[in-house]
Amino acid sequence: MPELGIHSQLRRSPFYEATIAEGASAFIPYNEMLLPLGYTDPEAEYRRLTEGVAMWDVGAERQVQLRGPDASELAQVLAARDLSKAVVGQGKYVALCDHAGSILNDPIALKIDDDCWWLSIANSDVGLWARCVAAERGMQVEVSEPDVSPLAVQGPDAEDVVAALIGDWVRDLRYFWFGDAEIDGIPLKVARSGWSKQGGFELYLTDGSRGLDLWRIVKEAGAPWDIGPGNPTPSERIENGLLSWGGDCDRQTNPFEVRLGRFVDLDVPDDVIGIQALRRISAEGPARHQLGIVLEGDDPRPGHSVWFDVLVDGTKIGDMTNGTWSYKLERNIGFGLVGANHQIGDSVQVQLDDEIVPGKLTDIPFRVEDR
Amino acid sequence: MPELGIHSQLRRSPFYEATIAEGASAFIPYNEMLLPLGYTDPEAEYRRLTEGVAMWDVGAERQVQLRGPDASELAQVLAARDLSKAVVGQGKYVALCDHAGSILNDPIALKIDDDCWWLSIANSDVGLWARCVAAERGMQVEVSEPDVSPLAVQGPDAEDVVAALIGDWVRDLRYFWFGDAEIDGIPLKVARSGWSKQGGFELYLTDGSRGLDLWRIVKEAGAPWDIGPGNPTPSERIENGLLSWGGDCDRQTNPFEVRLGRFVDLDVPDDVIGIQALRRISAEGPARHQLGIVLEGDDPRPGHSVWFDVLVDGTKIGDMTNGTWSYKLERNIGFGLVGANHQIGDSVQVQLDDEIVPGKLTDIPFRVEDR
Repeated sequence: MPELGIHSQLRRSPFYEATIAEGASAFIPYNEMLLPLGYTDPEAEYRRLTEGVAMWDVGAERQVQLRGPDASELAQVLAARDLSKAVVGQGKYVALCDHAGSILNDPIALKIDDDCWWLSIANSDVGLWARCVAAERGMQVEVSEPDVSPLAVQGPDAEDVVAALIGDWVRDLRYFWFGDAEIDGIPLKVARSGWSKQGGFELYLTDGSRGLDLWRIVKEAGAPWDIGPGNPTPSERIENGLLSWGGDCDRQTNPFEVRLGRFVDLDVPDDVIGIQALRRISAEGPARHQLGIVLEGDDPRPGHSVWFDVLVDGTKIGDMTNGTWSYKLERNIGFGLVGANHQIGDSVQVQLDDEIVPGKLTDIPFRVEDR
Repeated sequence: MPELGIHSQLRRSPFYEATIAEGASAFIPYNEMLLPLGYTDPEAEYRRLTEGVAMWDVGAERQVQLRGPDASELAQVLAARDLSKAVVGQGKYVALCDHAGSILNDPIALKIDDDCWWLSIANSDVGLWARCVAAERGMQVEVSEPDVSPLAVQGPDAEDVVAALIGDWVRDLRYFWFGDAEIDGIPLKVARSGWSKQGGFELYLTDGSRGLDLWRIVKEAGAPWDIGPGNPTPSERIENGLLSWGGDCDRQTNPFEVRLGRFVDLDVPDDVIGIQALRRISAEGPARHQLGIVLEGDDPRPGHSVWFDVLVDGTKIGDMTNGTWSYKLERNIGFGLVGANHQIGDSVQVQLDDEIVPGKLTDIPFRVEDR
């Protein structure tokens, strides 16, 4: 495979040099930054995440800051979920939709202050979208990218590590809530969140010059629990049903198709972008839905990071949007975005690059007994 | 340097396999696609471009299509240049600005039909921006990404190659104008354009399934002129003053700062995005301007694809936004985005990674006598 050039528009996170020192062997471009993808041994990273604790450079998870008198109004019109009762210190997972109800991004919206929100985004230019909406509607709000870089601590031992580092108060944080902290003069916001289902925290570093210090301090604090480097892990996140916007959605995917309906509030004000379309889709029922796919055979396939056709009797019924070897099921699994008339238990075939592999539709999260 | 992962969100152009076969050795992500960056011998590629003819996979130069009754109105409100007199078959280089007058992208706007435009874009999500503007203003226009992939033929011999391939009528095309063609059943639009100052054409392939056929046909047609693979070439484009949006601009750069003022029409309607800000900036004069920088010393430096501070007497006066070895000047050169009070002929210093290198400000395009 030819090399990808590391060029000027791919920025490095404050943790970059530490990830290199830890042996980061591959990166992907994400929000015009370099996101570490792995440290040479995917199974060891999976075991560390699911059985111990891992630290992740997710600095590429950029923050879009909305600040000004109309910040809360802008956050609300961007997000198809009721934010009116959110308080400072609370985060909410939201779908940002376009005017047709298709998902543009699925950030956590953090209420930083009465006049300030952060949208902690997946890989698309939410800042551009927010600036356009704010300006077109004449809102008094500044949209910017602050100096904020999350470092995730994930895994069953993550709470012990972060409590040892910051204090036992973090044990009382509710999911997606956050508080301020300082370690060795390093300013942080500490949130209970992260892109795994193993539990953990994200340390939002708010001084990019201190990235390597923070990495070292977390590593030292986690040493008693054998903390090690990691990154968002396809096997774990697909087993547990976490969506990858961009990976598992196309440009016409609405929240109801990919199990995000419970994060949509249809009674938000009419000026929320996409809400009319979402009400209609909700009433009519979405055309597609997302189910699991378990493939037959126990040979691990190379990472399926492209979409593959899902067939029934030779006819395409949808796409397998991401596939991966599941260490838990010891099968190749993936998300199926298939017509709403296809159901759990149905037999399907997936057209991989070189062969058609039989499989079946399952519920999400994946369970060993579904294989 | 660690490897960058080639993941699902980086699409391949229809010419990808041909570029691999030709020896493409590095790619950059560009509009979520893989753009070939080089074929192992930069000087040979420079010579081929400036003395012969080269063919470039610029499929990553995506088209944002505006189609519908309000397509021309949308094109106009997006572009701070008068498009009212453009006719079908004409392209115009335009700055797309935000409401503060900062450049979001600098595409060629091609009038495809009375109700259809293409914006042939640099590396930012113009489609997202255009969709937002259209929806917020209630315009009747569909914004989409059509199946269009440009293949550039560039260099002093490019006209002979394209005329041999398509017909002598292409010799009469004016700059940025285009016409329809078909080769071996492959549908194209042929434009006199391309991101070099060596002259040439871009063949807009409108059937992605025929990319490898088109590559082979162009290669065969160009064989008498020793055509070979190439790509946008930093040395050539900087010597000749071609702007790289994204490379040479930050998020606060307005057209007047980077020599694009002549492409701005201040008398466009008031609903054109950014025009009020641009009128004010034009009246007051921009705070920065773009000049050339020639560094002392004739040791080629590695590609400077990041911004470096430009100093006078130890005080920062701006940035060198891109630097490269110039084969023509046999010096390291770059664009300087510096305070408007600094002038051609001034001595400056540039803070590279490891040393401060003296240089001077020059006019653009660069001339051998300026070194």
